[in-house]
This record gives sequence, C-alpha cells and structure tokens, in this order.
Amino acid sequence: MRPIGYVKSPYHETREVPRGLGAKHDTEGVLEILPEFETGLTDIEGFSHLFVLWTFDRSEGFELMGTPPSDNRPHGVFATRSPRRPNPIGLTVVELLRRESSRLHVRGIDMLEGTPILDLKPYLSSVAPEGLRRGWLAEAEARAGK
Amino acid sequence: MRPIGYVKSPYHETREVPRGLGAKHDTEGVLEILPEFETGLTDIEGFSHLFVLWTFDRSEGFELMGTPPSDNRPHGVFATRSPRRPNPIGLTVVELLRRESSRLHVRGIDMLEGTPILDLKPYLSSVAPEGLRRGWLAEAEARAGK
Repeated sequence: MRPIGYVKSPYHETREVPRGLGAKHDTEGVLEILPEFETGLTDIEGFSHLFVLWTFDRSEGFELMGTPPSDNRPHGVFATRSPRRPNPIGLTVVELLRRESSRLHVRGIDMLEGTPILDLKPYLSSVAPEGLRRGWLAEAEARAGK
Repeated sequence: MRPIGYVKSPYHETREVPRGLGAKHDTEGVLEILPEFETGLTDIEGFSHLFVLWTFDRSEGFELMGTPPSDNRPHGVFATRSPRRPNPIGLTVVELLRRESSRLHVRGIDMLEGTPILDLKPYLSSVAPEGLRRGWLAEAEARAGK
C-alpha cells in the first residue's frame, strides 16, 4: 500500500473534526493526487460523488469494542467508524466540486491535514432510504430526540 | 494489512462475476470473520447494509487507463471499479441478511471465493438520487438505451 496523494484539510487534530449526532459534514478540502497518478483521474469530473479510501495514519492499535461519539454505549468496531480498527482504513463519501488537473476540490472532508489517500472510486448508486436500517445509530438518535 | 476474514462466494473466476450494464448484484454469500475478531461484530446485525473492504488478491499491477465492461471507451482507473488499481482494494455494499456468530450472510456479493476481507463498516446514509451524477456510466447507459 502506498499513498496516491494526500488530503488538504482544515483539520489538524482529531478533536477538531465534527463528530457525534447531528454533526455536519460539509467541510471543503482538496484531494491532492500525486502527478504520476493524474492520468488515472481521467473522466472523474463526470461524477458528483466519490468514495475516498484513506489511512488513519495518526491512530495506533485497535479495540474490538468502543463507544463512538454519537452514543454512550459501546459497540463492535465493525459496527462503527472508529479509527482504531484492525486495518486502519478510512472511508469517506465526498462531493466533487471541481477538478484542477491533479487537485480535486471536494465537500465532505472529515480527514486530517496530510492524510494519505489510498484510492478513489466513483459513487455509482445509493441504497434506497426506505430499505436502510441504521442500528444503534438510529436508536441513539431516538433517545436524543433527533 | 491482514485479513479479518474471507469471502464465501459462488464465484471462482473473474469471468463468472456479473459485470457490465444492467448486471444484477443480488448474489448471496457469507463473510466469514475470523473468530479472534468476532467481538468486533457486536451490534452489526442492526444495520441493513455494510461496506466491505477487501483485497483484489488475484489481480496484478495497475493501469491508469482502462475500458470497463460497461463501456467501450477507456476511462481513468479512479473513475472505474477496475481491479488493476495502484492499491488493489475493493469496496462492495452488501445487504446483511443475518448473522450466525462470526458468519455474516449477505446479498450483493461480487467477490471471488476466498477473497480476503480487510474491513467492515456500517452503511449510515445515502446520497440522494436527485443529487447524484454518474458520469461516463450514465452516458454509456444512454447510448445502450438502458
């Protein structure tokens, strides 16, 4: 695994990233792809949304159970977005605002400044909201009256 | 990076996986998580859909441009789901049908039998269809009259 680029983000510390119930994810940033991979971005500007795979490079070790910022109860790591995972890979859906050669301006950044990017993929389809169940998160929202 | 488990799939060869325009993705399979990670699945059964991150373990090298099965024109690798990526990580959204201890029965398998699983994450929200643009794929569908 090697970075294909790095995130330009306004966040320098984990505690700055909006988290928990009702957190907004409309922060803008830039995905700076390395020039050697720029050809791989061909036609990406036709997509409104992208999956970004990245590395939790400031996280160490993992915990199989943890209490997320959006709840006061512990859940299994694979049922959360905790950074302390067996394989520390992050996944974020961003909106692609515009491309400037190898720089992708995006909305929805929740990574820290300098985060290594592993991959980009086009977002092709959504799960229909009526078919979606959101487990403990929906329960936590209900308890919080959100 | 180490596997947290392996995919049980009816597909043994890449050519068996439905691909291209109009391909159905309702194949059932099992995500067999290693017993040492089972605790990390706690509460995962509350979610209807999961992101599965996995390794293209039968793919070698990468190509920055390639022609996907759903089009007859080449596109950049980051605008496609090609297995020949700089970091060979696959991403699939599956529907969680049921959990049997460390075995997750799912629908939507497009991985090969024995594929190493790197991570599971809950699918929490969808991009609204009215805000989604699907680039070259929408164009290819329009040309094919789909």
